[in-house]
Order: sequence, then C-alpha cells, then structure tokens
Amino acid sequence: MNKLSCLIGLAAVVGATPALARDYVLLDTDKPAQNWKIDSQQLGIKTDKPFSVSLRTLHGGLQEGVSLIDIDTGAMTITVVPTRGMNVLRAVAGDVRMGWDSPVKDVVNPAFIEQNGRGGLGWLEGFNELVTRCGYEWVGHPGMDNGELLTLHGRAANIPASKVVLSIDEQPPYAIRLRGELKEQAFKKVDFSVATELSTTPGATGFVIDDTLTNNGDYPKEYQALYHNNFGTPLLGQGARFVAPVKQVSPFNAKARGDLANWQTYRGPTKDYDETVYNLVPYGDARGDTLAVLHNQAGDRGVRVDYNVQQLPVFSLWKNTDTEKQGYVTGLEPGTSFSYNRRFQRPLGLVPTIGPKEQRQFRVGFALLADKAAVDQAVQRVNEVQAGRPTEVREEPLVDLTKQQ
Amino acid sequence: MNKLSCLIGLAAVVGATPALARDYVLLDTDKPAQNWKIDSQQLGIKTDKPFSVSLRTLHGGLQEGVSLIDIDTGAMTITVVPTRGMNVLRAVAGDVRMGWDSPVKDVVNPAFIEQNGRGGLGWLEGFNELVTRCGYEWVGHPGMDNGELLTLHGRAANIPASKVVLSIDEQPPYAIRLRGELKEQAFKKVDFSVATELSTTPGATGFVIDDTLTNNGDYPKEYQALYHNNFGTPLLGQGARFVAPVKQVSPFNAKARGDLANWQTYRGPTKDYDETVYNLVPYGDARGDTLAVLHNQAGDRGVRVDYNVQQLPVFSLWKNTDTEKQGYVTGLEPGTSFSYNRRFQRPLGLVPTIGPKEQRQFRVGFALLADKAAVDQAVQRVNEVQAGRPTEVREEPLVDLTKQQ
Amino acid sequence: MNKLSCLIGLAAVVGATPALARDYVLLDTDKPAQNWKIDSQQLGIKTDKPFSVSLRTLHGGLQEGVSLIDIDTGAMTITVVPTRGMNVLRAVAGDVRMGWDSPVKDVVNPAFIEQNGRGGLGWLEGFNELVTRCGYEWVGHPGMDNGELLTLHGRAANIPASKVVLSIDEQPPYAIRLRGELKEQAFKKVDFSVATELSTTPGATGFVIDDTLTNNGDYPKEYQALYHNNFGTPLLGQGARFVAPVKQVSPFNAKARGDLANWQTYRGPTKDYDETVYNLVPYGDARGDTLAVLHNQAGDRGVRVDYNVQQLPVFSLWKNTDTEKQGYVTGLEPGTSFSYNRRFQRPLGLVPTIGPKEQRQFRVGFALLADKAAVDQAVQRVNEVQAGRPTEVREEPLVDLTKQQ
Repeated sequence: MNKLSCLIGLAAVVGATPALARDYVLLDTDKPAQNWKIDSQQLGIKTDKPFSVSLRTLHGGLQEGVSLIDIDTGAMTITVVPTRGMNVLRAVAGDVRMGWDSPVKDVVNPAFIEQNGRGGLGWLEGFNELVTRCGYEWVGHPGMDNGELLTLHGRAANIPASKVVLSIDEQPPYAIRLRGELKEQAFKKVDFSVATELSTTPGATGFVIDDTLTNNGDYPKEYQALYHNNFGTPLLGQGARFVAPVKQVSPFNAKARGDLANWQTYRGPTKDYDETVYNLVPYGDARGDTLAVLHNQAGDRGVRVDYNVQQLPVFSLWKNTDTEKQGYVTGLEPGTSFSYNRRFQRPLGLVPTIGPKEQRQFRVGFALLADKAAVDQAVQRVNEVQAGRPTEVREEPLVDLTKQQ
Repeated sequence: MNKLSCLIGLAAVVGATPALARDYVLLDTDKPAQNWKIDSQQLGIKTDKPFSVSLRTLHGGLQEGVSLIDIDTGAMTITVVPTRGMNVLRAVAGDVRMGWDSPVKDVVNPAFIEQNGRGGLGWLEGFNELVTRCGYEWVGHPGMDNGELLTLHGRAANIPASKVVLSIDEQPPYAIRLRGELKEQAFKKVDFSVATELSTTPGATGFVIDDTLTNNGDYPKEYQALYHNNFGTPLLGQGARFVAPVKQVSPFNAKARGDLANWQTYRGPTKDYDETVYNLVPYGDARGDTLAVLHNQAGDRGVRVDYNVQQLPVFSLWKNTDTEKQGYVTGLEPGTSFSYNRRFQRPLGLVPTIGPKEQRQFRVGFALLADKAAVDQAVQRVNEVQAGRPTEVREEPLVDLTKQQ
Repeated sequence: MNKLSCLIGLAAVVGATPALARDYVLLDTDKPAQNWKIDSQQLGIKTDKPFSVSLRTLHGGLQEGVSLIDIDTGAMTITVVPTRGMNVLRAVAGDVRMGWDSPVKDVVNPAFIEQNGRGGLGWLEGFNELVTRCGYEWVGHPGMDNGELLTLHGRAANIPASKVVLSIDEQPPYAIRLRGELKEQAFKKVDFSVATELSTTPGATGFVIDDTLTNNGDYPKEYQALYHNNFGTPLLGQGARFVAPVKQVSPFNAKARGDLANWQTYRGPTKDYDETVYNLVPYGDARGDTLAVLHNQAGDRGVRVDYNVQQLPVFSLWKNTDTEKQGYVTGLEPGTSFSYNRRFQRPLGLVPTIGPKEQRQFRVGFALLADKAAVDQAVQRVNEVQAGRPTEVREEPLVDLTKQQ
C-alpha cells in the first residue's frame, strides 16, 4: 500500500482487481445510457457512510445527450462525464469543492464542438472540468506541426467513452471503480486506446485516476499526455500557496517571467491578470513518486495531487487568477510535456514515442486536505521528497515564443 | 400599448408578464424533448380561434434529433426550432407563408455542421429559416479578424436552446409566449446568454421576437446582432416593393451599386442574378420605433417588420432574387451591424460593446399584411416616421472591398 | 438480365420495381431508428435459404446513435450504415469477408467528425467501410480549389440518410432492396440528392449498388463520384492479383511509379510500404459494361466489381499493403475521377457537370467468387471485355504533384 492510497483511504483499490467484485455495465454498444442508480443498501453493504452511484443524461442546449455519473462515496460526490473523455467534472465534499466555475456552464457534447474553430481553440467552448484529459496524440497550444493544425490539447476530452463499467468490490473496503475506454483512432494517423479508471472507496474524500494508453498500431508513434487538473474556490484564494518538490521552475513566456518571484503564491481574483504559467521539473522519491499541494492562506484546507515522475516527468502550474466570472482557477498539471505546441516540445525532448503494442500508464491521485493536520502532513511529504535538493529558478522561458511562430 | 402590439393584436403581450399564466417546461436539463401538444380546449379557453402548441422531434438525415415547436394561433402556424437557436422556420396563415424555399430542405442539427468549413461558410449548410438569429459575438461575412477566422454570421443559429418554456396567460387575450435560452460561451472568449422570447396571441397573424443579450462576464465585450428575416413567395415576387423610412442607402459592393436605381423594387426570379445587398440607415420616430415593409406588386399583401433603431440602428436589405430553386428570397435584416466582416465594421462604428453584467434588448415584430388596407396603413406609418426627412442615396459602398481583404 | 445480375443471382432485381413488393419504412422524419427485425418465415416465404433484415442502433464512444442494417440473405450478411451515407460496412459469407480491418473500430457518427480537421483529412477518423461513397460535390485529396478547402473525398460518407425504406418482393426471387436518400445541400453552393439503393436476393453472395444523383438546382454544377470499395483479408494477401480490362495504367505519383512493374500483384503486409495508387482507364464492352477482379494467389477465391464506363469512366487501384494493424487493404474504385484534388482533375477532363434537374446513375455490383471456377469465369469475362486491345503503361503520372500545390 503506497502513500497515495493511504492518504485517501483507498486500501485495496490501487493494484490488481480482487477476485470478487460486482460489475455493472452502464454503457455499451447495445446498451444506451439510461437513468440508473445503485446504493450500498441495495448491495447489502453496511458502511458508516452509505454510498451510491448513479447515471443520468442531460438535455437541452449544448449538453443534449451528455451522460453524467455521480459517485457519492458518502463523504464526497465525484461527477464523471463519460461523454467527454471520462473527465471528472467536479468532486464535492460538504462545503469544499474540487473544481471551478468556468464561463462554460453546459457540459458540452463534443458533437457541437469544432476543435478546429477559433484557430484551433474550439476546445475552450467545452472546458469546465476538474480533471480534463489532454492528449494523447498531442497536447499544447494550437499551431502547425508537420503541416497540420494541432488543436488545443488534443482530442481526448472530446471523445465519448465506449463501454463504461462500474465495479464494486464485494469485500471491505468495497472499492468502487469506474472504467471507460477512449478510442483515439484515424486511418494512417493513430490507433490509440485509453483504458481509463477512476477508483475510490466508501467514505473517501479523494480518488485515483489510473489510465493505460495502448498503441494498437504497428508503428511507434509520438504521444503526449497532460492531466489538466483545475481548482477554483474555495481551495484557491488570495494567499493560497502551491508547494511541490521542484528541481527547476521557469516561466512559460515573457508575461510569466515578470511574476516569477511570486510563482508559488496566488493572488485573489485580479482584473486583467489573465494567466501566468510556470514550467516545473519535479523531483520524485526513489520510486519516482511525487506530489503537488495547493492550500489556502490559513493552511487548513487544500488538495494534494499525487503522481509519478517516471510516468509524467514535467508539470505545468497554470495560474489563471483573473476575475471570478472570467474563470478564477489554477491548474496543477502533471504531464509528459508542457503546454507549448508540439513542434516546440520536440527539441525539449518532451515528445515521447510509444512503440507498437506498448502501453503507458498514468496514475494521478486526488486527495482533499480537510484540516491543518492534513495540509501539514502533505507539506511534510513534499519536504521529504525534495530532501534538501536545490531548486533551479530559471529566468528564461524554455522556449522563446517571440522568435518562433 | 404601442403600435407594434396594436398591429398584430398583441394587447397584453409586450411588457411585463401578467401574474397569472400557466407555464409548461418543454425542454430542460432533466426533460428531453418529447412529442407533446396542448390546445385551448384542454386549457378550458373558449376563443373564436382555437389555438394549440405542439412539440415534435425530427428524425433521419441531417435533421436527426431536431425539435420543432408549432404554435397554431388559430390564424397562423408559427414553427420554432429550439435546436437551432430558437430560430423561426416559417409562419403560415392560410395560403400566405412567411418564409422561403431554401435548397436546404432538412432542418439541420448543428451537430452535423462545420461552421468553419467552406472557408467559414459552413453556416450555409443549415440556412433555411424565416428568422435566423445572427450573432452575438459577431455577424457578417467570414474572414480573419484579430487572428481568428470569424465564420459567417456567428454561432447563434447553431446553438440549441436550453430550458424551453411555454407560457400561456390565463386571462384574455391569452398571450402565448415561448422562451428559450442560448448560451454562447467559451473560456477566455465569451460568456453571453440570450434569453429569447417569441410571443403571439390567439387569432394573431404575427408575432414578436424579444431577445435579451446578457454579458455574464467581468469584461466589456464586442458584440453584434443581426436578425436575418427572410421572405420568399408569395410575399416576394416581380414588382414587389420595399418601403421603409430611410436616412441613407448605399450599395454593399460594386455589384449592388450597378442596380442602385432599383433598390426598392424586386425582380422576379432572375437567372444569374445572385444577390444585391443595400446598407440602410433607417429613421425612427421620437422613440426610435421604426419599421420596414415588403409588399407585393398589387399592394394587397405584405409583411411589416417593426423594430427600434436604438436597439438595432442599421438595416441590410438582401435581394437574392435568383431563380426559385437557387433560393428566391429577400432579407429584411435589422441589426447592430451590416454584413461585412467584423474587421470592416469596426471603423464604421458598428461593433458595439456590452459591459460586464449589462444587457441589450432586441425586439422585432412580424405582422402579416393581409389586404390592401393593411398594406396602405403600413406604408402610411412609414411615411409618418420618414416625416419628410431626406434620404441620402450614396453611390459608394461604405467599405471598399476591392482594396481590402 | 445482364451479366451483372446473372453472376450474383439477382434475377429480377436490376430494373424496374415489380408491382408487388412489401415496403417497410425503417427511418423517416417521424420515425426514429428502432431495433427491428423481419425474416422470411414471418413473411411467409419459403426459401432454401431463410433470410432476414434487422435494424439496430449502436451506443457508446464515437458510434453513439449510429444505426446499422443487417441484410442476411441466408448466404451473406450485408451490413449497411444509414447514418454514414448508406455505406456498406462489410459483407460476410461464411469465412469470407468483403471488407477490411481499419484502425478505426467504431462506426463513427458524423456528428463527431470534423472533416476540415487534420488539414482536410478528418474523414480518416471514420473510414472503415467496404463501400464508402465519395462525392458528390467533389472527391479527391484535400486542398484548395476556388478559394475553398476541399476536404478528403467529399461529404457523402458523412451524411446520414433520410427516409430509409426496405422493400421485399412478394414473388420469387423475392428481391430485397434497401433505399435511403442523401441530401447534399448548402445554400448558394449545392443542391444534390442521391437516391441510393442496395439490392440483393435470398441466397445471394453479392449485391448491387444503384445510386441516382439529382441536381435539384437551377444551375449546372460540377460533380464527382468515386466508389471507394475496400478489401482486406482473406481476399487480399501475398500474391493476390488484380485483373481488369485496362486501356491505360499510370502511377498516381512518384512513389507508385517505382512499383509500376508490379501494379497487378499484391504484396503481403509490408512494413513501411504505406500505399501505391494506380490510375486506370478501363475498357468496357459495347455497352460500356466492365469489371474488375481481385483474387487470391491460389485463384480460388475472389471478388468481382462490375460497373459501366459510361457512368464511371476511370478507376483508382489503391494498394495499401502496409501492415495488418495499419490497415492492410486494397481499394477497387471506379469513379468519374481519380483521387487528385479537384483542381488537378479539371485539366484532365475529369470534373463533369450535371445540368439542372439532370440525373446521373451509378451502378456497382459486388459478387463473391467462391471457388476456382468462379474466379476463372470472371477472369475470362475480363479477357472478353479487353478483347485483345492494348494496355498502355504510362510511366509518368498524369499530374506532376512535385510541381503543383
């Protein structure tokens, strides 16, 4: 049992599926999404925190036909969007919400989005989730690469999941797993599938994403992955801090360079701030495990995001501390790559390849830090991983965007 | 009670909603569009003209999943398309039809349209309505502006409405109102919502569109609105005339300049005519109220379009008098702007801004003129508004499209 | 009864519809696609080979809402995709399959495809059928023409069919016909409709496509058609051969030129082969009837594709003998045109026009060749049509793609 699972109480979740679990197919080729619910009482499971999982479909506007799955652990309701790449819309525990308030209010059906619109920024017409999968053919800002317009952050977030299966262990701690497959395919171009899994346990105030990318093709392919994990109020606020074991930090561009001195602290909602982005190279522990922590000014509430630097070697810290209505939000984004267009990342060595039939695993854990003790423990863990190693603060962006385009 | 409501018999419609009205939610987040109908008999309302409202969903082809709402006032059936921006497909009273015959026969689901296709003309693959909302981020011809391709006439017509509510007054004249909300949102780009309303009364042969645009964001934004109101036969025909109180008329481009002398009269279906467009600056009365009239050669049938120049200060007269199958149609189009690409309208002062939380209202009335007396009365009203003021006929287009691009 | 119908046992199919047939509307404006099945027993038809036709709808992933129609002749199951241009997904007879294994596994709903994406190659995100209709406004590689980006192979494959009707004759041989209409329309641009028909008979191991393109508009329009008929294993394999009566063969481009000597034979799955394409001008018989044959190395299994050179005067032989997972497949593609972008085909005289109200018919037959005798008979027919006439092997591609772009 690793630290990640400890923290969010996922005793038996991470690792192999136990022999005894009930599976519920929620969506499949011959099974349309239909309103459905199951709870611990129906399952004959007695827990301190009764839990339930429900499925419903939204109608009207740009969310026509979008399905949502609510996993209520008894302590947190995690809302997953099968129609949008198994993204996590939000996770709410009492008065604390992981997620943010985007100007995009609908959970937009990908059928209505032209990702090639707005010069490749069409993705912004649907962006409002807590966890937005970016990839896996490419991530990053739109722009030409190899003669094609790469649209913002790839297709994954706008691919509806095939075959969605809910699995609930029959034994304590009654792990709850939700799996859905994304097919990212185009003749001659790409043949990826992504087996996504979100797991949690009754009573938990966190969850683990565990995705497996497979290159089904006969050729090695470039790929990129970035987990665009987004937090607004109440976790984000004036004086909130970002803490992580960091080897190198550098500004994404000239604007971020100007605010480099304050890269670890957040402003309150700030008119005309727009955004700054910092490119981090994290330290991991001996096994590559690492984490990033966001906590409020008082240090009594926060969130930790756990991942492994062998899977996701770099990290984008997106500080979009503009006004509330503009979308006051920060992104804690582990990835294979930063958010530059792919053509800029190749020279940085941040466009890995995946061989034929090879797989890559990406695991990201999310745990609410509900009080000062939890925040302190997470910060302590950051210090352990940092282990006194230096942090290089690099003034120059890794890519000179003023010269290139 | 203003002249607009007088004309189409909407005694109590325009203005505040009366206290007593029955509301029917036809579409909402948890309520899919389903075949449904209600009529005056069911409502226990005895009127000279029994009325009904019905909802149905189309299948097959590019109209799969498109909902239509038919409001039969007893004298006119008004068909609204919630799936396409609450556009009005047509309004038919006996043998008179407001609307036109587009080559586009399906009522196309926006999911199938790539507005960025055809160099930004993809919108044309769905264009066939009587009232097509254009805007609200931009209107006009496709082209680059601020580094983005603006697609023809904006997104509104291809945004499905959220929460559609039918409201029927419990007291005479039993006003019928249909409301639907459009969300025009994209992170960092725009956060508009448009509360649309179409209202009419039992027995009426007209209706009023009353839209409220809200900028939900924290920043002032440019916006544009244009109501693309389109009429074919039988109202349009050889010798038909356009009459309106006009301060200035100018040709949209060189082609329209060639036909400037006849800008107020229509040809019959004319091979190879394509289109001419005239840019009008209308006069309004002391309150800004104005109108435009289209009537047939005999002057015994027509339509009037009422609006207010404070809301919609300019007007495009689109004369697409090509062959019938090509789409024989004229557009009477009040707007904040003409149909040039937005980059050409900024210098003309026709790209207004809307401040944070501000609203803009656009009201457009449509009334059938069923006989000579009605046509004469409308023309007389035009004369009253013109009030002897001069009309400048400007030979040069306001934008020199031969120089720019 | 012509040779085409002979071969696949379609005695009464080709030609006028007999007076007595049962019609079943499977999809229409007021009739959504619903799971449905009918079989010969229900129809009271006693045949050696009981047959059935069934309709079902797929869910999940990019195939959400896609309908499939399976026509089981008793000897072959032909799967048609109304949602994708009435394309034929596959046709399976025992252990022989017409069709191929594309990396694209979902039957993709056009709503999710941006054909303008990937520089106009978005079509590749849905390409996996046995028969993919290309056209009818244009076919060929993406590229600019008349100031517009023409996307790969036109829109037809991504237009859902309107009104799908199954018709079963009441008299022997109980012909089975499936009709669906495609509307390819855009205001000012195009007003085409395509009445598609697929017909077969109980017990048949083949079928006939019979499409009628109508220009509903008032102006002559350019059009192009290409039937992208795709075969993988087991018909395609190392040493498989292509045989057809050919007047001229030329390589599509420099790469194909290098392999010109072997244009009639196939490699097994070959790493890094990608594709070669040969442009053929076929000979027809006195009536224009012609055929193309693909058979395996042993010459005991194959397929013949029958068509008429007056309808479809040229033929693309697409040899995509790359690895199996990359999509090991050959295309036998009769068309009005080759696969160059339309702007390159105009000078070749391969962009025909269709006058107002005119129609063009395209008939393509598919027949499984189940044994050596059938293969030999088909090859003999090729020789009859060739009739000793010479084949010009042209070394230079018809279009010099290295100079143009």
